[in-house]
Amino acid sequence: MKIPEEFEKRIIFPVGEKIENEYFSGTAWLSVLVPPETTFNCPTFNVTFEPGVRNNWHRHPGGQILLVTGGKGYFQEKGKEARVLKEGDVVKIPPDVKHWHGAAKDSWFSHIAISTNMQKGDAEWMEPVTDEEYSKLP
Amino acid sequence: MKIPEEFEKRIIFPVGEKIENEYFSGTAWLSVLVPPETTFNCPTFNVTFEPGVRNNWHRHPGGQILLVTGGKGYFQEKGKEARVLKEGDVVKIPPDVKHWHGAAKDSWFSHIAISTNMQKGDAEWMEPVTDEEYSKLP
Repeated sequence: MKIPEEFEKRIIFPVGEKIENEYFSGTAWLSVLVPPETTFNCPTFNVTFEPGVRNNWHRHPGGQILLVTGGKGYFQEKGKEARVLKEGDVVKIPPDVKHWHGAAKDSWFSHIAISTNMQKGDAEWMEPVTDEEYSKLP
Repeated sequence: MKIPEEFEKRIIFPVGEKIENEYFSGTAWLSVLVPPETTFNCPTFNVTFEPGVRNNWHRHPGGQILLVTGGKGYFQEKGKEARVLKEGDVVKIPPDVKHWHGAAKDSWFSHIAISTNMQKGDAEWMEPVTDEEYSKLP
């Protein structure tokens, strides 16, 4: 799917390269703003989701910060209501909290993702968000 | 000085509150996206400079990352040419490197600032960038 020009311009940071992996329900795009390394200990990415695309449930041993740069999306912690996200929103995901994030059905969605306390290790990926769970979102 | 509406809308993240302190050459604005605390160890701010305003020379024991959200500005490491900054630019400032950043003479300027390795301590502030140094910038 082609990224709408207006959306791409709005989100400020580059969209980067397509990623298709088993942890996303469809196509997402990744731009590395700060690579993983040990000077800054602060890998930072711009992540863009095609409409309807979300990642699997997962958790970060060191936590994660999301800074929403455009579109409409969701963040949900296991056992809680999903939070609707729009540009300018900040999400602070504490270490080891099971969650997912992604786009709304009818909107592209981008956020900057900062991996905090990276020395604590990589994300642990779990099961997909089901279509039934996703279809119930506001 | 009033922030131009178009600029404020462009930079996505809130401008926040005016700060006037001895380490800036004039008025800047600060919005706390992630406060300093020990869960994330990753204080994150949106900083907005009025035209012509810059901070003093300083260094961060743990380093800093800048993600430019709007306007025209500069980053300069001591002993090097200043780098012109525009939206979407990323600046990685290694620990203990003496530097300054701020707006161009004729432009508002905003960046997200991420304090990395915050356990290493607070910024060390030094002398102002002189008008002579500043007036030579491209």
